[in-house]
Amino acid sequence: MAHIDLGLDETQHPGITGLMTYRPETAVPLNALAEALLRAPHPTLTAGERELIAAYVSGLNDCTFCCSSHSAFAAAQLDGGMPLVRQVRVDPDAADIPAKLRGLLRIAAAVQESGRKVTPELVDAARAAGATDLEVHDTVLIAAAFCMFNRYVDGLGTRLPEDPGAYDETALRIVASGYVGSA
Amino acid sequence: MAHIDLGLDETQHPGITGLMTYRPETAVPLNALAEALLRAPHPTLTAGERELIAAYVSGLNDCTFCCSSHSAFAAAQLDGGMPLVRQVRVDPDAADIPAKLRGLLRIAAAVQESGRKVTPELVDAARAAGATDLEVHDTVLIAAAFCMFNRYVDGLGTRLPEDPGAYDETALRIVASGYVGSA
Repeated sequence: MAHIDLGLDETQHPGITGLMTYRPETAVPLNALAEALLRAPHPTLTAGERELIAAYVSGLNDCTFCCSSHSAFAAAQLDGGMPLVRQVRVDPDAADIPAKLRGLLRIAAAVQESGRKVTPELVDAARAAGATDLEVHDTVLIAAAFCMFNRYVDGLGTRLPEDPGAYDETALRIVASGYVGSA
Repeated sequence: MAHIDLGLDETQHPGITGLMTYRPETAVPLNALAEALLRAPHPTLTAGERELIAAYVSGLNDCTFCCSSHSAFAAAQLDGGMPLVRQVRVDPDAADIPAKLRGLLRIAAAVQESGRKVTPELVDAARAAGATDLEVHDTVLIAAAFCMFNRYVDGLGTRLPEDPGAYDETALRIVASGYVGSA
């Protein structure tokens, strides 16, 4: 049970979904932020790559709900599917991904610790592997945003879905309609 | 200089303001979130109290720009002014604040470490001091949101304003027009 009374059946509203129903005033900008970061058209980063960054940071933060959700959303949109997502979560250095994405994931891991851990060397390395300024910006903000979403979901003690298949079902909805459209 | 080229005079756009000019697509939901959390009408928490939570968490995250900004915004809206804000940042347990606010700040400090650090005991203690479920929810989300904003500002290596009086000037604008209105 969550730390507060959400006034709803938590088995039907796991993780952040119950919090968004409880407080629509904050749900609107939170969903708009997720849409802008993860799903809006982007000149160079695919939705799958952006979801992969979200899943990776959520894993580092040990947030089961967010990590399971965004792993499913990433897997649904990446050619490598869930095996690739699992590789990245275990060890991005060994995963079968382009050097540019590896450089961005290293920046994301630094952000997860603290903004002050992002060094010019990390940014230069990503840039040398082909990363643009916009990609660096969006990677930092995606990683920072999941340091928020993860703390929100776990800080209020929300519950997990009873059926682990729920993540794949939500992935279908997010891929089709997005964070704002399916909210 | 920031880690990326923001394409503007950074002395005129310190901290998050340069990032918001660089990427308006994400600035819109970020400002809407700050407005909903910190300045929208609230049944029980004043804007000053909510800004105090933001300043306190930003201090724990060692984010000079956000801590200085939200300390000024809190001081402008609290009877105790900057001396009270400083007391809280140094030691909330010794500060001259109501027990309920102290309980909420303890929850915020836990969130700053990790969502998983928020225990039922911390929530029960805040509730025993008079905190409502909505206050606990908003405290967790404010603290989580500043774990994002702080990482965003420092993760991209933004610069501080050259004139420290800039924080007080911005406070006047935020108090008068808010995050969306003055963006």
